[in-house]
Amino acid sequence: MTDPADLPATAAARRLRDGSLTAMDLTEALLDRVAAREPVLRAFAWLDPALARRQAAALDAARAAGRAAGPLHGLAFGVKDVLDTADQPSQYGSPIWAGHRPRGDAACVAAARRAGAVILGKTVTTEFATRHPGPTANPADPRHTPGGSSSGSAAGTAAGYFHAGFGTQTAGSIIRPAAYCGAVGFKPSYGTLHRAGMKVMSESLDTIGVITRTVGDAAFVMAGLTGRDYGAPEARAPRAPRLALCWGPTEAEAKPETRALLDRVAATAARAGATVEPIVLPPAVVGGLEAHALVMNGESAEALGWELNTSAAQLSPVLRERMDWGRAQGGPALAAGQAAFAAARAAFADAMAGYDAILTPSAPGEAPEGLGWTGDPAFNSLWTLLHVPCVTVPVGAGPRGLPLGVQVVAGFGQDRAALAWAEWVRQAVG
Amino acid sequence: MTDPADLPATAAARRLRDGSLTAMDLTEALLDRVAAREPVLRAFAWLDPALARRQAAALDAARAAGRAAGPLHGLAFGVKDVLDTADQPSQYGSPIWAGHRPRGDAACVAAARRAGAVILGKTVTTEFATRHPGPTANPADPRHTPGGSSSGSAAGTAAGYFHAGFGTQTAGSIIRPAAYCGAVGFKPSYGTLHRAGMKVMSESLDTIGVITRTVGDAAFVMAGLTGRDYGAPEARAPRAPRLALCWGPTEAEAKPETRALLDRVAATAARAGATVEPIVLPPAVVGGLEAHALVMNGESAEALGWELNTSAAQLSPVLRERMDWGRAQGGPALAAGQAAFAAARAAFADAMAGYDAILTPSAPGEAPEGLGWTGDPAFNSLWTLLHVPCVTVPVGAGPRGLPLGVQVVAGFGQDRAALAWAEWVRQAVG
Repeated sequence: MTDPADLPATAAARRLRDGSLTAMDLTEALLDRVAAREPVLRAFAWLDPALARRQAAALDAARAAGRAAGPLHGLAFGVKDVLDTADQPSQYGSPIWAGHRPRGDAACVAAARRAGAVILGKTVTTEFATRHPGPTANPADPRHTPGGSSSGSAAGTAAGYFHAGFGTQTAGSIIRPAAYCGAVGFKPSYGTLHRAGMKVMSESLDTIGVITRTVGDAAFVMAGLTGRDYGAPEARAPRAPRLALCWGPTEAEAKPETRALLDRVAATAARAGATVEPIVLPPAVVGGLEAHALVMNGESAEALGWELNTSAAQLSPVLRERMDWGRAQGGPALAAGQAAFAAARAAFADAMAGYDAILTPSAPGEAPEGLGWTGDPAFNSLWTLLHVPCVTVPVGAGPRGLPLGVQVVAGFGQDRAALAWAEWVRQAVG
Repeated sequence: MTDPADLPATAAARRLRDGSLTAMDLTEALLDRVAAREPVLRAFAWLDPALARRQAAALDAARAAGRAAGPLHGLAFGVKDVLDTADQPSQYGSPIWAGHRPRGDAACVAAARRAGAVILGKTVTTEFATRHPGPTANPADPRHTPGGSSSGSAAGTAAGYFHAGFGTQTAGSIIRPAAYCGAVGFKPSYGTLHRAGMKVMSESLDTIGVITRTVGDAAFVMAGLTGRDYGAPEARAPRAPRLALCWGPTEAEAKPETRALLDRVAATAARAGATVEPIVLPPAVVGGLEAHALVMNGESAEALGWELNTSAAQLSPVLRERMDWGRAQGGPALAAGQAAFAAARAAFADAMAGYDAILTPSAPGEAPEGLGWTGDPAFNSLWTLLHVPCVTVPVGAGPRGLPLGVQVVAGFGQDRAALAWAEWVRQAVG
C-alpha cells in the first residue's frame, strides 16, 4: 500500500475528497517522514507536531460535520520564515527578530488556511531572504547546500515533508533551490500572491511563489490559493511549443553540466516537435539586469531601516556591506535603476513575440558543496526583474549525481502557459 | 516674535540648523498647539508628549555633542496609524488590532528618524484606511469631516501640530483630506516610499505620501526622506507651464464651487502665461478607472485574509460588504482588472505628451458636513491607479468658507515637475 506521504498534492486531494484518506492520517504520515529525516536536513525553522495535528483534527471534524471542504483541504504547506504566521514564530532568519510572534497571518498563509491547508511549520530562510545561510542541507546529498533563500521550503518539498512550500524570490530564491533539490519551483507573475504580512525587502522585485513535487501540484495549489485557472499542465498539449533558447547575458556562468543539459533538452524538445530557436535579448532587457543589484540592495536598505537604525550589529557583515553599498549609490541612482527595470519589461514583451516560452538554465550547475553558500542566482535575477512567470522542472542529474533543473519562462501574465510548457518539456525529456 | 510652531518645515529647519531654535523648544511649541486644539480636533490616535520630548532632547543632545544633524533634524511628523512604529501602538483604525505594538518601525518612519525627525504621534486613520471613519474633525470647521482616510495627518498638519503627516492613498486618501483641510497633499509616483511596515491593502494601488503646510515643505521632507532631488518649488520658474485641463470621466461629480474654481484657476493661469488646453482621456485610461473598485476590494480581501478568517465580526459592515463583493468577482476578474490598470498606464503616458502637467479637481467640493462620511474620492482614484505624482494646493474657499484645493498631476516619475507646477499655479492664483 502506498505511503500517503508519497502522494503528490493532486492525488492526495482526490483521496481526501473521496474520504479514503483523512487529514490526520496524511499529517501523521508526513510527520513520520519529518521525524526520520529532519535531524540531518534541518529544513524547519519551527515545527510543532501537536499544532499540525490540531489543524488536521479540526479539518477532519469540519468535514465530518458536513461543512464544505476547501480546495486544498488537508494538504500540508511549509511556510518560508519571512511570511508571518499568527500561531507560529516568524523570525525572518535574523537574531533581531528572535522569538517574534506576529498577531496575524500573511495574506498567502491566510489564503492557504481558508482553502483548508495545514500549515505544518515554518521553513528555514537565509537572513531576511538574502545571502547569509541557515542550517538546511540538500536532501539529495546533505553535504551540499539546498540553495536559498527558500532553503527549507525547497529541501522540505524534495524530502516529502509537505505538498507545497511557500518561497519568495528577489534574485533567484525560488527557482535555484528548487532546481538544486530536484523539486518544481514556480515563481508566478509579479503581484499574483499578495505580499501583506511578508517581510518585504525589495518592493520592485519580491515575488511569492511555491515549490512543489510536480508541475501539476504547482497549478493545483496556485488555483486553490487564488481562484485563478492554472490549467491542468499534465494533460496532453494540443500542439508542440515554439521555444526560444536563451542563455541570456550570464551565459559565461553556466557549468559544463548545464551546457550539456540545455543542448540535450533543446534537441529532445525539437525531436518531440517543438521549434527551438536561439534568441539574443535586446540591450534594454540586459540593461535591466545591470540595475538589479542596485535596486535590490537600495530598496532592501530602505526596508530594513529600523534594523539599521537600532540593531545594525546583529546583521551579518555581508548584508550590512550590501545595504551600505546600496544606500551609497543615492536616491537618484535608485530611481534610475527602477526606470531601467520598467524599460526592460517593455522591451521584453516585444522580444517574446512569436514564442510560447523561453528555455533557459535554472542555475549554473549542481548545488555547490558545503552549507556556507547557497549558490549563484545568475540565471534568475533577470526574470525576476522582468516580473514574468518562471518554472523550474527537474531533468536528470549532474556529474556528482545531484539534481539539475531547466527553466521555462513565459510572458507576463502567461502563468498557465509557463506551467503547461514546462511540463511539456519535462515529459519530452523524460 | 514668531511662534516657532508657525514656521513651515523649510524655515524651521533653517533655524534648527543655525542654532536659533532647539528641537525641544520647537516640540514644546507644537505640543502647546496640540493641547489647545486636540480636544475638539481629535487628530491623534496616540500621542505621548513625554516620548516626543525624549526624542527632541536626544536630538538636541546629539547636536550638542557635535554629531552631524540629519536633513530633517528636529522637525515633527505625524504618522498615519496604518504605518508601524516600534515605540508607539499601531492599531490600523480597527478594534482587531487594539493595543498592537509592532517590534519595528515602518520603512518610511525609520527613514524619518534617520533624517532626524521627531515622531510626534500616531494620527487617526479610517478603518484599515478604507471607509469607516474615525473621530477626527476638520480644523476649518469641526462640524465637517477632515476627509479620509488620512484624516488625522491632514487635520493635524492644517492645525499646525506637525510639519508633515504621513498619509497613504488607495483611492483618494491623501489628496482629498489635504484639500478639505486646506493643506498641501503630495502623492509621489507609486513606489517612491517603501511600504515595508505599512498595513498594505491593495498592492497595485497603495502609495505613501505626505501632507504638509506648503509645497516647499513637501519637496523638503521628501528629499530628506529619500535622498532624491525634489527641487525648490518656491523658486521662480524659468517659464510658464503647458497645462492640460482635465475633468476626467467623473466630471459629473464636481459641485458648483469646483466648477467655478477650476474655471478661475485656468483663466488666471492663462493670464499668467500658461497654455491651458482641455483634454479628454483616451478610452484605455478610462477603462482603468472602471476596474478600480474591483482591484481595490479584491486585493484588500486578500490582504485582510487573516482578519476575515478569524475576526470578521469586528470589521465594519461596509468593509465586509466591499470585500465580500471583491472576492465574489473571482480570481480571473481580478487579474483582468490588474491588466486594465497596466493598459491605462501605458495609454496615459501617450496622452501626457506635449503637456507639463494636468490641472484637475482635488475633490468634488468642500468637505461634507458631519463626521460620518469622509467624502468621495471621485477625482483621485484614476491618478492613483495611474501611479503618477499628484499635488493638491489650497486655493480659496467654497460657499461655506471651507478650504478648496486644486490638483496638479504630472507623468510617472515627474515628481519634481508636479511640485514645481503646483506651486506655480498656487502663486498665480494667489
